Amino acid sequence: MKRKLTFSVLAAVMTVTVFAQQNVGINYNLFNPEITADKKATFKVLAPQAENVLVWGDFQTTPLQLQKDTAGVWSATTDVLASELYTYRLIVDGLPVNDPFNPYQLRDIAGVANYFIIDGEKNHYLPHDVKHGNISKVWYHSPSSGKDRRMTVYTPAGYDDSDSKRYPVFYLLHGMGGDENAWSELGRASYILDNMIASGDAEPMIVVMPNGNANEVAAPGETPEGLYLPSGSRSRSSDNQFEASFKEIIDYVDSHYRTLTDRKHRAIAGLSMGGGHSWRISMQNPELFDYVGLFSAAAGWRGSDITPMDNEHLLSEGMMGIFNNPPALYCIGIGKDDFLMPLNDQLRKVLDDNNFKYTYHLSDGGHIWRNWRDYLSLFLPQLFK
Amino acid sequence: MKRKLTFSVLAAVMTVTVFAQQNVGINYNLFNPEITADKKATFKVLAPQAENVLVWGDFQTTPLQLQKDTAGVWSATTDVLASELYTYRLIVDGLPVNDPFNPYQLRDIAGVANYFIIDGEKNHYLPHDVKHGNISKVWYHSPSSGKDRRMTVYTPAGYDDSDSKRYPVFYLLHGMGGDENAWSELGRASYILDNMIASGDAEPMIVVMPNGNANEVAAPGETPEGLYLPSGSRSRSSDNQFEASFKEIIDYVDSHYRTLTDRKHRAIAGLSMGGGHSWRISMQNPELFDYVGLFSAAAGWRGSDITPMDNEHLLSEGMMGIFNNPPALYCIGIGKDDFLMPLNDQLRKVLDDNNFKYTYHLSDGGHIWRNWRDYLSLFLPQLFK
Repeated sequence: MKRKLTFSVLAAVMTVTVFAQQNVGINYNLFNPEITADKKATFKVLAPQAENVLVWGDFQTTPLQLQKDTAGVWSATTDVLASELYTYRLIVDGLPVNDPFNPYQLRDIAGVANYFIIDGEKNHYLPHDVKHGNISKVWYHSPSSGKDRRMTVYTPAGYDDSDSKRYPVFYLLHGMGGDENAWSELGRASYILDNMIASGDAEPMIVVMPNGNANEVAAPGETPEGLYLPSGSRSRSSDNQFEASFKEIIDYVDSHYRTLTDRKHRAIAGLSMGGGHSWRISMQNPELFDYVGLFSAAAGWRGSDITPMDNEHLLSEGMMGIFNNPPALYCIGIGKDDFLMPLNDQLRKVLDDNNFKYTYHLSDGGHIWRNWRDYLSLFLPQLFK
Repeated sequence: MKRKLTFSVLAAVMTVTVFAQQNVGINYNLFNPEITADKKATFKVLAPQAENVLVWGDFQTTPLQLQKDTAGVWSATTDVLASELYTYRLIVDGLPVNDPFNPYQLRDIAGVANYFIIDGEKNHYLPHDVKHGNISKVWYHSPSSGKDRRMTVYTPAGYDDSDSKRYPVFYLLHGMGGDENAWSELGRASYILDNMIASGDAEPMIVVMPNGNANEVAAPGETPEGLYLPSGSRSRSSDNQFEASFKEIIDYVDSHYRTLTDRKHRAIAGLSMGGGHSWRISMQNPELFDYVGLFSAAAGWRGSDITPMDNEHLLSEGMMGIFNNPPALYCIGIGKDDFLMPLNDQLRKVLDDNNFKYTYHLSDGGHIWRNWRDYLSLFLPQLFK
């Protein structure tokens, strides 16, 4: 009986996927979550043999307990949710797994989570009926490493319809364990850009999202190393290697895209490790960037140690460069619970001691994509004005 | 106790993902599958509370039963596997789910499956240390629909380093329920192309993978319709709409890329519905294509009916066009168990009756991606020689 039940669930849920399109007419019927008019999310999971099903997501602090009906469908509904992109997994008899009734997923390092979006304030994380930019995965040659490396490039709507119009460039860097896909996927960068450019909130711009891992040329699965377990430590950049070679990325972009190449038309920002990269690259090359964003930045990060560098050490990393040649905008954003707060406090102390102007945005929460999408949304309208 | 165990598993497996990068050091340790030197795949699933765990994949005809050890790790090993890209899911207490210990996944319509690759003959499905082409998601304006639509474009290595070199173009079409992402993801097109171009087996070419759904402008999640349940019926093209407007795609490509625009440098192929599209487009425009590939093609498909059109009906669809102006290559591939075999048998009868030259490749299996990747690999070396 048990085996038979197994296969009846399989027939409903799985046939199309694993065995491809042989039975193109079969469908799932369930789709999670259903969003009610008052912005609650209902989850339904057909799992008659399971003993316990939970939904664990970043929309509440404890897992949501689902209840089983006589047909074997587990369900529960959240409280009213604020507008946001939420991620979640199911926990089926103790095992955290993706929701088979929601094909929309995001990978973060080695883990994959389902997502959904509650519309409203964060509606710009979804595609709208506006002109869209293009997203390209571009291989460029890196003279410093002797290797070809991969970046994601966003070109704004209209870019391909002109031979002459030039655009400002925003370099947007990922964190440890991330890659050149992180900002366009987890960060929703192309949707945010399309929508904010269409509404006039952001200038049309090229956005370059390179792979910032010194030891990896591209995202997991896109390299000759084959399919391996992604990890933060594997991806870690070290010893200024990425920062010191950053000009080769700018050179490639300026020689292959119709860019505006003066300082007023170049921005850099990054999250976590990429915030540390942005911190270093902007102070090593203050003449190149008029806009700098440090999102939950690992500024002054020393390997696994989050003890901040003292002022003298921070200054010795080259901060006088940017003090002597300050950009038009230097923007720091971090969550109250972020484990990198000590580094950011120390960085701000050095900035304050040197009368360096910056903006500071303190969020709720920790070292999370929700905050980084917010910082991107806050940063973009300030660029190239 | 049960609740406590749940959270200990969660801590090991899930923290990084759902709550993003707050704990960047945490890792999974397990990664599936482990491939042995003799090409067996071992799966290990940490699920102490589960009552039954199976692996259901396209590498065997029945699910693989995993056995639980005292630490709560379920495991099993397959037989020796031939070189191939395999997809699978876990079945945990009756529910088919993705493997949380393998972040590599492919979406096929509404279902997501994990995948792995056994190297050997199909090694070209993985990236190698060769020059890579770029993959772009491109929005173009469709005059016939009045809408912007999305396509995937592969430009070969070197394309961006020249201002003058022109390339042949291969139009590669997806099936019902598919979209502009299908060939580059499920079909591994960019890896196959990179490797076959690098080895000299295929000519450098531009490959255009449009969205062939008359009712959808782009893949699920990329349109103003938001996040919905993908389905074959929703995506279905009807009444020659896509085929009749296909020249607008060619016009866009020829005006935005450095193409060779004569017939000898243009190919078209597609799978299933896209094979039907390729059949119609090539006979409606025989002057445009010198290479035609029909992969498990829905040639003469009449909605949900797989009763073949009779010869007269097939001819009335315009087949005389291509009989009077035959391409250099007309290639038909299909699996022995494919549900569209009756349509293909009838099509071949018409071709034979009219002394039309074509190649025919009969595979094992049915209407599956494994065959379509094979057909692509067989078709590419014959193009533009």
